[in-house]
Parts: sequence; structure tokens; C-alpha cells
Amino acid sequence: MVSREEVLEKHRHKHGKIEVIGNVEIETKEQLSVYYTPGVAQVCLAIKDNRESVYDYTLKGRTVAIVTDGTRILGLGKIGPEAGLPVMEGKALLLKKFGGVDAVPICLSTTDEEKIIEIVKSLQPSFGAINIEDIESPKCFRIVDRLKKELEIPVFHDDRSGVGAVTLAALSNALKLAGKKLKDAKIVINGAGAGGTGIVEALAYAGARNIYVFDTSGILYKGRAENMNYMKEKMAELTNQRMEKGSLRSVVKGADVLIGISTKGAFDRDMIKSMADKPIVFALANPEPEIGYDEALEAGAFIVATGRSDKPNQVNNLSAFPGILRGILEARAKAVDDHMITMAARAIAKSVGKGLSREMIMPSLQDSKTIAKLASTVAAEIVEAAKESGLANSAVDSSEVKKRVRESLRRYRRIEKLSSKG
Amino acid sequence: MVSREEVLEKHRHKHGKIEVIGNVEIETKEQLSVYYTPGVAQVCLAIKDNRESVYDYTLKGRTVAIVTDGTRILGLGKIGPEAGLPVMEGKALLLKKFGGVDAVPICLSTTDEEKIIEIVKSLQPSFGAINIEDIESPKCFRIVDRLKKELEIPVFHDDRSGVGAVTLAALSNALKLAGKKLKDAKIVINGAGAGGTGIVEALAYAGARNIYVFDTSGILYKGRAENMNYMKEKMAELTNQRMEKGSLRSVVKGADVLIGISTKGAFDRDMIKSMADKPIVFALANPEPEIGYDEALEAGAFIVATGRSDKPNQVNNLSAFPGILRGILEARAKAVDDHMITMAARAIAKSVGKGLSREMIMPSLQDSKTIAKLASTVAAEIVEAAKESGLANSAVDSSEVKKRVRESLRRYRRIEKLSSKG
Repeated sequence: MVSREEVLEKHRHKHGKIEVIGNVEIETKEQLSVYYTPGVAQVCLAIKDNRESVYDYTLKGRTVAIVTDGTRILGLGKIGPEAGLPVMEGKALLLKKFGGVDAVPICLSTTDEEKIIEIVKSLQPSFGAINIEDIESPKCFRIVDRLKKELEIPVFHDDRSGVGAVTLAALSNALKLAGKKLKDAKIVINGAGAGGTGIVEALAYAGARNIYVFDTSGILYKGRAENMNYMKEKMAELTNQRMEKGSLRSVVKGADVLIGISTKGAFDRDMIKSMADKPIVFALANPEPEIGYDEALEAGAFIVATGRSDKPNQVNNLSAFPGILRGILEARAKAVDDHMITMAARAIAKSVGKGLSREMIMPSLQDSKTIAKLASTVAAEIVEAAKESGLANSAVDSSEVKKRVRESLRRYRRIEKLSSKG
Repeated sequence: MVSREEVLEKHRHKHGKIEVIGNVEIETKEQLSVYYTPGVAQVCLAIKDNRESVYDYTLKGRTVAIVTDGTRILGLGKIGPEAGLPVMEGKALLLKKFGGVDAVPICLSTTDEEKIIEIVKSLQPSFGAINIEDIESPKCFRIVDRLKKELEIPVFHDDRSGVGAVTLAALSNALKLAGKKLKDAKIVINGAGAGGTGIVEALAYAGARNIYVFDTSGILYKGRAENMNYMKEKMAELTNQRMEKGSLRSVVKGADVLIGISTKGAFDRDMIKSMADKPIVFALANPEPEIGYDEALEAGAFIVATGRSDKPNQVNNLSAFPGILRGILEARAKAVDDHMITMAARAIAKSVGKGLSREMIMPSLQDSKTIAKLASTVAAEIVEAAKESGLANSAVDSSEVKKRVRESLRRYRRIEKLSSKG
């Protein structure tokens, strides 16, 4: 574990961790006149005549805005847009490193829903996609749903759909090892924020039919009166067909799968002991899981996954978002739909390959080359899925995409070697 | 001259010309845990506890947003935010190459004044300064003036203050060669947009007392009724003390200086012939000047300057804005005032050194090393001036700044060599 002082020092050293550079040479007067005045006017006029050509001539088609209002940064809560900037910068760093995607942190000083929507809409010309990040729920749902309707470019909500994709990937592999089927499994999910919602959406779309969701007010069901919002109502539609009203402890009895995306200590040994044969437990709260990896195993869990990198089976968005966003950009997708998320999950699950075991249901995030390789696979899958969904604006070939992503990541490794020096 | 097709091809090749990269290495799991979760949470908390430390731990203090609404792109007019993107990207490229400044193009899809102000205010957390670019006048003045009052970070209006700085620099050297003094010179300026306004402000602050300004409705004077706005009223206060009401042709008689920041063909030989001894003519319209360089000389001009790079005496913002913005960031300046602009102009004028002649009143922009050297000088001067104005938040030493700028530009040249390949 790295010390607080070392982390701070490493961030102070160069004042953050991303920078903006040129990808062309401007040493000569002639080069200047191509990339700036007077030559650049020709490019402006070409785009004026054909607005779509902005994707050809500018950074737009390869650049994402990472937008937050600082209301739910990591597990730290509402700490403000400045305090959220290191996370957004980190996300931009990972997007470049693993997805070859250019990303800009946009931390907004307003938390007003309408204003955020208005601002993101106004930012569209410079960006090919929007990633909404660490905005409190349920505001984030309303913002994303409105943006999905009103933007010309795709919006991705990693806290929701990214979590959904990686959880579905991990669960597919876990169920395979347990010899169970998603459509038959009884699945209990504790947590109905952005992550919980994304998990329900992904599992339901993939075929799960027996899901129960809990929030701080208990189990979700159609018609529940207290502590509801429009997204929880949607979740209630997708889950709990039997209108169960019991506690987590009672509903988890006989469950095949228990997923936590809530808080430390939310699960105990007795819950796991009460589950069906070969119980699968995902304790995804960060940084401290609902129940420790070892404790869950001791209580009889067949497979355990957490968000932690110091235990087997790390379920982390990093497996998904670089590839998903790169794929969205490559496809010039109009939107990201459930099919694309499901296909991304399938690609992630499949990438584990022959190593699949109770201690390895997810691809390793231990080394950067594996992550990069995974991202290229996911990007290609997203392109394929976008075409199938009729959401792709580009006729690009997915194997071509895979090659291109790998190439861009190799190129970036060379640049990183130089840029990280000194 | 590079062909249209070549310019387009060069922009298409990599889809634009800037990219976002990391400046740290994230090859290992430990590095990942420093720059992303869980380590990054320590940085978030440090900024939450002390918001000012966002300058230490993030990109904020070295990053500028280049904001446009696409209403006055180059001389092309209202061509839209997408069509303006190549210019903003080019500006970001030049800021990095010559100022070592990280810049992000923000092209807004709204042209509404209040909305633009609101958006820029909301963008503050991620940026250390704002550069307003290519927004139509007089809207740009109202936006910039409001932002100056309402932002926590400095706002720079290059079309206005950058033009003011380079014109003042060129004029100082030209007057020196003509053996005239700014305070005594009769100066006629044709053009009262952003550039004309910036020139009047810079010259007036530097001591010019006998200025006449023309717009499309004729000469500006206090109380003029038609085609006025609050900025023209301010200009009328600073100029034309004698309340002259004649035409450009009549007022230019006996003038020492004629400056055009208007349109091709606005000046003719007779005007120049009617000026005082050793007439100085700056025809700064782009890409075609108010009168050609050679024609103006033939008509008797003592010194001629244009915006063109194919003639001597190129007056171009590039001499100013990279250094000014870098200086603002280094000083953590609260604002940019007239004193800072004047000192930047003085530094630019001085940089010509012993080469000063009628064919060389401005530093050469022919090679990138000269521009970079100039930027480091201007940045240091801006830091000094910001301190003198009481606008600096940083105690940084200006000679230290000069060194640091040069170092960052050398570093960038190495990165550019690699990033521009392929």
C-alpha cells in the first residue's frame, strides 16, 4: 500500500497527471500555415459546408468529456468539483492508456440538474461522446436519460452501465462454474444507486428473471411508497415479481447469488450460510466490501468477488470502460444500448479463457498489457453490437478496430515512456 | 502556399492535431493504485480540505479553456462551433508548442450571451484561465467584462488584448525609428471590433493621446447616435477629444500613424500621401490587408506592417498569446490588466534587439525557436507585471519562470518528435 504522503507527492510533482499535446510537427513556417492561419481556414470552410466532416478533420470523433458535478466522488460523497478533479483526470489517464481515447475532465461548479443538462448539450461540438461520472443518484439518472434523448452524441454512464457490464461478465463466469443458469438463478442485490441499477439492467436484459433489490428502505416492489424515485420504480418493474416484502436476511435464504453494491459490513456469514448450494457472493462496495473475501469463503461461498485488487476476482469498471468508450467512438454510435453492454460483458467474460476457475472469473487487471488487450477486444465487440443494434454511423470493420486500438496503445506506450520522465 | 487539398489531408490524417496524454507512468498495479483508486481518494480529500491545493495536485493551474461560440471564426464570420473547432485546436497546439500551456478547445453550440457566461462560470473548476476566442462583437465585450467580474480565474480575450499587445509593440518600434513619440503622434485606427478596441486600449494606456477611431458608420465621437454600443462609447471617451466628424480620408491628413484592423481595400495611396512625414501604416486585416505592403511603401509609407507572413513586419498575436497565457498561469493571476498587456508589448518590442530596422519592427515568427524564446520572455514579464499590479497569487520569481518555460518547451519538442510520427 502506498502512503498518503507518497500519493500526494506524486500528484504534486507535475501538477496532476494528464496534459494536452500536439500530434503534428510545427517546426517550420509552412507547417504553421497548414495547422493555423491561413491554411486552417480551408478546414473551417470544409466543415461549414459539411458539418459531419468535423469527425474527419478534428479531434471530436476521438475525444470524450468526463463530466461531473462533484456530488458523489468515489465513496467520498459530495466533496465538490475541485476535489473530484483528480478522479476525472485519472479516468482520462486510464482512457488514454487502455483505450487510446482522448478525454477531458469537465468538473462543473453547478449541481443544478437543468443547468448540467444545458451545459453538456452546449459542449457537444468539441466531443464525440460524454461520460457522466460521479453525480449523485437519482439526479444522475434523470440527467443521463434526458441527455440520451437530447444529445446528438452518445452518453455513457460508467457508474451504472460500466458496473452493469463487469458484474454481468463476472456473474456469467461464476454461474458457469457453479453449473447454474442466469435465467433460473435467484439473485439478490443490495444497493439501488447507480451501480445497483446498472447491474439490474444488465442482468435483466441478459435474461435473469428472479431478481430482488434492496435499498436502505428494504426490498423494492411495485407500489412501495417510501423512498422511491422513477428509477427505483423502473427497477421494481424488472424485479420481485412475487411482490416479496421480507428483509434482506429472509429473502437471501435459498438465493443462488448475493450481490452487494452498498456499504461495508452489509453482509454476514449467516446470510451466506442460508443461501442455496454453491452460493455466489459479490461484495462490490469500495474500498471495503460488504463482507471480506476470506470471510465469505469461510462461510461457505462457492465463489467470491470484490472490488479489491489484493484478492482474486476483482470486479472493476476498468475491465469495461476503456473498451466501451473506444468502441462507441469507433462506431460513431448514436447511443449505447443494453445489447452493446451485454456484448461487452460477454467479451470480458470470454477473455478469461482457459484460466477460468473459482479464483479467476474475471480477466486480471494486474498488468497493463492485459488490460489494453482486453480493451481492444471490448472495443471491437461494441462496434459489432452497435451495428447489430442499428446504432452505428460508421461502416468500420470490427477486426480493423481491434488492430487499430492495439496500434494506438502501442504508440501511446512509447509516448508515455517519454512524457512520464523527469 | 500549401494547397487546400494538402491542408485537408493533413488535418484528416490523425483527425485533428491535438491529443490528451498522461505525464506519468501507469504500467504497474502499484502505479494504478496511486493515480487511480484507491490512492487518488487521498488527493480528493486533500483538495476537499483545502480547495486552493487543486493548483498543486491537478492540471488546473496549467490548463486553459479556449472558448468560442463560432460566431466570428477568423475572417470567416458566423460559421458555427464545429467549423470553428480547427482554429481552437490550432490555438491549443500553439499554446503548447510555444507557451508550454495545456489548452482544451471548448466550442459551444449556443450563441446566447447569458448562457455562454453561465457555462464558462460553471467550467471554472477544471481550468486555470479562460481564453475567449472568435466571438462576435460587441457580444464578446459584454461576455468578457461580465466574466472578469464574476470569475475566480482570469479571462483573456486574445482577439482584443492580444491584438492590442502586438500592435503596441510594433508601433513602439516603428515610432522609435521615425523619431516620434507615442504621446504626440496622431493615430488613426480603422476598425472598432475586438481588435480595434484592444489597440485603442493598449495605445491609450501606454500614453497615446491623439487617437481617432473609425467604424463602418464613420468616426467615433462622444454622443454619436448611430451604430453605437457600450464599448464604442468607451472608445469615444478615450479618443477624438476634438470631436472631429470628418471622413477617414479627411482625418488621416497629417496623421503619423494609420492602423487598419478592418477589411481589404480600406486604404489607398492618396490617404498615405496625405499623412505627416514618415508615415507609419499598419494594414492588419487578414488574410488580405487594407493596402498591400508594397503598395503602401510605394505611396510613401516610412514603415509598413501587415498580418502576413510573406512580407516583413508581420504583426501577429502569436508573438503575444502563448507567453501572456503562460505568464498568467505562472503568476496565478487573478486578472489581466492594462499594465500587464503594456509590459508584454514592451517585452515583445525589446526582443527585436539590434536587428531593429524599417523591415524588422517585430520579432521574426519564421522559426519555432525564436517564438518559443519570445514566449518565455513575455511570460516572465507578465509575472513581473502581475506582481506590480497586485494581481499575482504566486510568489514565483520571474527569472525562474523564464527558465521553467524554456525547459517545458524543450521537453515538448522531444515529445512532439515522437507524437508527430506516423
